[in-house]
Amino acid sequence: MPSAMTKWNDSPIRARLGVQPLWLAPMAGAGGVELALAVARAGGLGALPCGMLDADTVARQVQQFREAIQAPIHLNFFCHRVAEADPDGEARWRSRLRPYYRELSLDPAQTAEAPQRRPFDAHMCEQVERLHPEVVSFHFGLPAPALLDRVKATGAFVASSATTVEEAVWLAERGCDAVIAQGAEAGGHRGMFLGGDVATQPGLFALLPQVRNAIDVPVVAAGGIGDARGIAAAITLGAAAVQLGTAFLLSDEARIHPLHRQALQSARARETAITNLFSGRPARGIVNRLMREIGPIGDDVPPFPTAGAALAPLRAAASAAGSDDFINLWAGQSASLARGGAAEQIAHHLIEQAAAMGMR
Amino acid sequence: MPSAMTKWNDSPIRARLGVQPLWLAPMAGAGGVELALAVARAGGLGALPCGMLDADTVARQVQQFREAIQAPIHLNFFCHRVAEADPDGEARWRSRLRPYYRELSLDPAQTAEAPQRRPFDAHMCEQVERLHPEVVSFHFGLPAPALLDRVKATGAFVASSATTVEEAVWLAERGCDAVIAQGAEAGGHRGMFLGGDVATQPGLFALLPQVRNAIDVPVVAAGGIGDARGIAAAITLGAAAVQLGTAFLLSDEARIHPLHRQALQSARARETAITNLFSGRPARGIVNRLMREIGPIGDDVPPFPTAGAALAPLRAAASAAGSDDFINLWAGQSASLARGGAAEQIAHHLIEQAAAMGMR
Repeated sequence: MPSAMTKWNDSPIRARLGVQPLWLAPMAGAGGVELALAVARAGGLGALPCGMLDADTVARQVQQFREAIQAPIHLNFFCHRVAEADPDGEARWRSRLRPYYRELSLDPAQTAEAPQRRPFDAHMCEQVERLHPEVVSFHFGLPAPALLDRVKATGAFVASSATTVEEAVWLAERGCDAVIAQGAEAGGHRGMFLGGDVATQPGLFALLPQVRNAIDVPVVAAGGIGDARGIAAAITLGAAAVQLGTAFLLSDEARIHPLHRQALQSARARETAITNLFSGRPARGIVNRLMREIGPIGDDVPPFPTAGAALAPLRAAASAAGSDDFINLWAGQSASLARGGAAEQIAHHLIEQAAAMGMR
Repeated sequence: MPSAMTKWNDSPIRARLGVQPLWLAPMAGAGGVELALAVARAGGLGALPCGMLDADTVARQVQQFREAIQAPIHLNFFCHRVAEADPDGEARWRSRLRPYYRELSLDPAQTAEAPQRRPFDAHMCEQVERLHPEVVSFHFGLPAPALLDRVKATGAFVASSATTVEEAVWLAERGCDAVIAQGAEAGGHRGMFLGGDVATQPGLFALLPQVRNAIDVPVVAAGGIGDARGIAAAITLGAAAVQLGTAFLLSDEARIHPLHRQALQSARARETAITNLFSGRPARGIVNRLMREIGPIGDDVPPFPTAGAALAPLRAAASAAGSDDFINLWAGQSASLARGGAAEQIAHHLIEQAAAMGMR
């Protein structure tokens, strides 16, 4: 049987994309052109999180990337269904948060925009057809078949995240070139789309080999991979590539709130939970006051992505006072393994050390 | 850097105990002398789960093991604190279950014994002093220092389970010879003893390297390791040995309810959750009706180990009618990787294949 290192070098994904099988996780908010370029310069696959961008910004970022380097780029889009407006639900959620508004002397009627999170649509699809990204991935399932066909027709390598074996099979059957097996350890939003129960989400140790057994397309491992040991272990378990996000959150290029950075560097980084409080969809972050007091999974939280609107004033007021009580501190369970410095160096070391893990 | 295979062969635990670093997980109820012997015959470390046994039965089982083979034996004990009786809490739990009693035409006042789960005590300690097991492990922390000292004075190799980095450090500081890092994927009871929040329990991919970084004693990896790929991955992540339980649940020697075996062989085995309904402490099992309807974590569940008493009549009546609605279907998240047959063959293949994973 081949060793981890042989597998790393012989990865079918490496052959197809011409880069090392280290994928930067597309982290909406924290990622961007600089982080993507840094990972690409180290030989990995850079990613641009596009779920919170409009089509023009996507085009501008891809252009910046293309001008700086000749390397494949990975664009990631959300493909959730936009929920109907639910004024009653919104009112219940606001009433749940009212004590915090009072505590911070804020007007409970105050409104703010939730961060824009748009699903992939025909307009964005046209942009993809113009930009010809080498890799396109989706979170929360796949777009409608007609849109997916158009993306595939551009020649892009198409992937999406699966959090269960069932989701992996569903994605492979619909023509994904790779499936990203997202273990429960992963930071940020879970890709879950066939079920909604976070209690049954498998860890990567269980998910990865079962997904590998169930589908024929290459599997990209994500979730809790914090260093070269994790990369080598994921390759051993059957991954053709790995996708790391939290490992880059402390890099110079990551754009996160200073309080988020501070929490990541503290012992608190070891205590994370999956929560739906910040966006309406389950996502893993460092446990903070809001998650502790309401419980990480709230029943009365408005649907994705609207839940954040009612939190925005609280977040602004508290963080101005130096508190992360209402900030989404996205982090995977290996956050304590993350290192600071230039992202290119971080990626370079991960690639070098992962290769070395297989050599005698 | 050494390959996984080199590490497997050079494991400090292998040198110390003279067996392959494959540990059978002690599974109270499902395990026993036959399963321990089978794994020992394959060259691994057999375990006797003693948490539900009295001292005389432990002695008899050790004697049976010693008469059959010359190999080290691993005895596992619970060391929970026995909770005060709480008649009000018990009454609330019974009232919660009353609709099920009605449905099954059972008298809600009916009483039954919960399975006996005794904490390690002075009487059992005397037995350990007489029996001289090579390995003694504990679940739910460690016994009182005086008892632990006596166990260590027998020369036994002492281990206990950690579900967080904090627990691992706590155990290492108190003199454990090894720490069992139990990922959230693990089946059966979680060893958690410093905290009670299942939402923050890390998966093995995150837990194992962080525990390895935090302590100097060898780490045994447990949870979600379903086959040789998992063993090699765990060794790569820093484990000195691995402990597998669910991988043996379908073996001829495992003593589980036929309905449990049936559930393990079905697609349902992929859907597990951590639940406190069956014993009062969090444990992972296949999702069944009771877990779905009450929710896997109940607030009004009596303390460990008394919760099972009120369920016993339901379990008996429903299972007689072919239903697993009220059975604790313990299973880890890699249950679907488990294979049937003789446990000695299963262990033999795991050991052979894990070694081969490192060879070119």
